[in-house]
Amino acid sequence: MRLALLGGTGDIGQGLALRWGYNTDRELLIGSRDPEKARNKAEEYTTELESRGVEADIKGFENAMAADRADVVICSVPAYHLVETIEAVADRLDDDTVLVTPAVGMKRDDGGLHYNRPGAGSVTALAADAAPDSVALVGAFHNLPAGRLADLDATFEWDTVIVGDDEDAKEIVATLAEDIDGLRALDGGGLGNAAEVEAVTPLLINLAMNNEGLHDLGVRFQ
Amino acid sequence: MRLALLGGTGDIGQGLALRWGYNTDRELLIGSRDPEKARNKAEEYTTELESRGVEADIKGFENAMAADRADVVICSVPAYHLVETIEAVADRLDDDTVLVTPAVGMKRDDGGLHYNRPGAGSVTALAADAAPDSVALVGAFHNLPAGRLADLDATFEWDTVIVGDDEDAKEIVATLAEDIDGLRALDGGGLGNAAEVEAVTPLLINLAMNNEGLHDLGVRFQ
Repeated sequence: MRLALLGGTGDIGQGLALRWGYNTDRELLIGSRDPEKARNKAEEYTTELESRGVEADIKGFENAMAADRADVVICSVPAYHLVETIEAVADRLDDDTVLVTPAVGMKRDDGGLHYNRPGAGSVTALAADAAPDSVALVGAFHNLPAGRLADLDATFEWDTVIVGDDEDAKEIVATLAEDIDGLRALDGGGLGNAAEVEAVTPLLINLAMNNEGLHDLGVRFQ
Repeated sequence: MRLALLGGTGDIGQGLALRWGYNTDRELLIGSRDPEKARNKAEEYTTELESRGVEADIKGFENAMAADRADVVICSVPAYHLVETIEAVADRLDDDTVLVTPAVGMKRDDGGLHYNRPGAGSVTALAADAAPDSVALVGAFHNLPAGRLADLDATFEWDTVIVGDDEDAKEIVATLAEDIDGLRALDGGGLGNAAEVEAVTPLLINLAMNNEGLHDLGVRFQ
């Protein structure tokens, strides 16, 4: 199974790429609007994994090319780039491609970060609206702190909540999530339940801001 | 320090009363609109704690009487009774009373439960608007599952996020929270950060609905 990480040069994309490279032998396609940047990052991840004795299969491509070749496409771009990124690759997605979004919309005020709920109901729903109808859209990986995820020396016990209306696609994404050591996939229900999942992300940042000694928080439901 | 639990005959109020009765020697005032019901519940809690060898100081009163006598008043009533409950006791609150709300507004659709954000920004903010200006309002205990909280055989490792604009009042509530074995208090920042805390509650219920073997979930940030 080939995984594409569109925007895979950025924070959450880097974390997922390194973890999947470290914990699995899956073929990883790093996507970027700039193919040169994608190739450089792919090489950087490969080198880091090699330094830990792991031989990973990571290549860099322009986003559309990465999406074209992948079975699962993770749009690891900021919320404000999500729709344009999906639209730019839409005609490269097969009917059995699984499209995944971890994006969360946030706004900041003096007190902290806040969930910026879009009119569509959630950022995940926005992505579903932008994707071709034939493609299964899954929300996942919303609440993972990029820094600790990308630090292969860091261990954790986190949950990621999977939401979507296609059960088979959710199952595929849950399996990918649990390939990462320390990550448990929980079923959050349908796409209509995405807002409450996304809203955890600003809360995690507010908690890190307000509590000494807590940084880069994830969440565990227990 | 005297604690009043308005609506202390209901689910979350029962859980908090039993835990504080079990873990502390604080004086607990169970409030209800019906003083007879409050007295019966206070006796029921006392009997349950006695059966575990704990002698607790729990009495029942009509809500306003309980609020009048307490240093910390926890409004453990459903969101749709919150404002009227606060208004009914407002003239009994001293300037140094700390008022606490764990209430969360939720609505249900076919897919699950959803956070029902009020125009005020959060249910905690609604409570702050209803309370006298001189009284410190703190949001806490939003994300605790009542069933496991009230089951003294159950153990847990949960967080409760404390939000409010009065740091001294928050500190008092954080101490009360950490009096309960297994409960950690985290600082969520000001009242303006309450919505993201409240929104975790419907998520916890959706996760319990969609994942076999998970019931009565709390949350841990780590």
